Amino acid sequence: MLKVAYDGTNYVGWQVQPNGRSVQECIESAIRKVTGEDIRVLCAGRTDSGVHALGQVASFRTRSTISAPQFRSAIQSGLPRERDIVIVESREVAAEFHATFSAVRKTYRYLLFDGDVCPPFARQFAAHSRVTLDAESMHQAAQYLCGTHDFRCFESHFPNKATSVRTIERATVSRAPMWTLWSAFSGNASVDASEGDSPIIVLEFTADGFLYNMVRAIVGTLQEVGGGKHPPEHIRDVIASLDRSSAGMTAAAHGLYLVSVEYPEELLRAPADDSRS
Amino acid sequence: MLKVAYDGTNYVGWQVQPNGRSVQECIESAIRKVTGEDIRVLCAGRTDSGVHALGQVASFRTRSTISAPQFRSAIQSGLPRERDIVIVESREVAAEFHATFSAVRKTYRYLLFDGDVCPPFARQFAAHSRVTLDAESMHQAAQYLCGTHDFRCFESHFPNKATSVRTIERATVSRAPMWTLWSAFSGNASVDASEGDSPIIVLEFTADGFLYNMVRAIVGTLQEVGGGKHPPEHIRDVIASLDRSSAGMTAAAHGLYLVSVEYPEELLRAPADDSRS
Repeated sequence: MLKVAYDGTNYVGWQVQPNGRSVQECIESAIRKVTGEDIRVLCAGRTDSGVHALGQVASFRTRSTISAPQFRSAIQSGLPRERDIVIVESREVAAEFHATFSAVRKTYRYLLFDGDVCPPFARQFAAHSRVTLDAESMHQAAQYLCGTHDFRCFESHFPNKATSVRTIERATVSRAPMWTLWSAFSGNASVDASEGDSPIIVLEFTADGFLYNMVRAIVGTLQEVGGGKHPPEHIRDVIASLDRSSAGMTAAAHGLYLVSVEYPEELLRAPADDSRS
Repeated sequence: MLKVAYDGTNYVGWQVQPNGRSVQECIESAIRKVTGEDIRVLCAGRTDSGVHALGQVASFRTRSTISAPQFRSAIQSGLPRERDIVIVESREVAAEFHATFSAVRKTYRYLLFDGDVCPPFARQFAAHSRVTLDAESMHQAAQYLCGTHDFRCFESHFPNKATSVRTIERATVSRAPMWTLWSAFSGNASVDASEGDSPIIVLEFTADGFLYNMVRAIVGTLQEVGGGKHPPEHIRDVIASLDRSSAGMTAAAHGLYLVSVEYPEELLRAPADDSRS
């Protein structure tokens, strides 16, 4: 299993595409250089073009005798020199581990900048809102998301999945100090307490799974609330409508981060040594 | 006067060069689009290729009737679409104001990352040290820099300037939370109290002026101290040697930020209205 961070700016997304370089093909090519094997890598969440990851999880099977921890630097050395894809960790996991289907919980983060002048360093890492937003009413609105609902109103090209019912455990919206943008990049530092006059708004969502474009559609809808177009209760009505057209626009890709993915503890343990010999 | 922030990654530096795009030519071209005038823009500090700026200051004279505050967005709209150069502020200043020669104090910041795995978002914004550094001994060493000294030991291609005597008012080295990297980008948030286990080291220097490559040579020398090659007192000996070869390597450009430039208050005031009519 690999934990992978990437700056999605220069990629067509996770998945191999005909029209450009994908994160997946870079990692598969790096593994090929290390093991000589033509391996398909599975991932926890197929991020779109421009979307970033702090803790994407990928898995693959290999006959290589290289130890799991050594794979980290071995694969890294075969990745693009720009170092915009970084292997954070490599470890052996249970044989039944599947990066996509074993995941029990995912967290996404979205960063909005609503000040007048967006600093050059934020341009690829936070979406710019030209309207000053009311983060508190956005947070209130986000509470209507929590719980188990049919979220097809936030799904692009419904139906993509067998069911559009998901459980959102946690949804928060808060202003955070300017440097929080950077905590976003570290992947583990928790986002700081709210800070009233900062132009950075951090939105965070934890759920058992997300539909296609769901976070970005939620953010677009919350932006309508934050801009005063709708009261917080609007979110409840949008969910009840089961209708994508009642929700807001799909927010820009470059504000979105796949932060972390959780798996059952027993699947993260390597098989006992005797099973390998 | 313009206050300018830029991500220096994709530029050959501030100054017009034959081998690539410079920040200066982008700003001059944007002014030409606004005023039709072929104007030479002066700056506070000619940053090298890859060096960033949070508060570069530039000045120019124009016959345009556009008001000074309006210049900000007018120039911005003529700058590269990547928005890696941002005009933070535009204001009218005294006729005697000269971005280069009127400056009385400058602050530079340098960011080092000394953890194992450099996150993808840090790659263009902090230099990576493969050696874990002792930030406290670097801070002790930096105190020997404070005061008025002949700093030719830290100057590339001496002599570039009439005198290599400068006064460093303040030199600090501290670990800071991961998100401090982002505070670097905001330009005003002060760097947080030291945090022992963070892989980010922030170095900051305030002086009445700096010689060519001086900050980067100082950082390279402090890295030798931080890595245990020399004790903190080494800096005192290096300064006394007046010899560039006794100092350390010139640290990488992409860790360096021109943070701010100070001018005498009276030069930052616009001429009284009657002088304009």
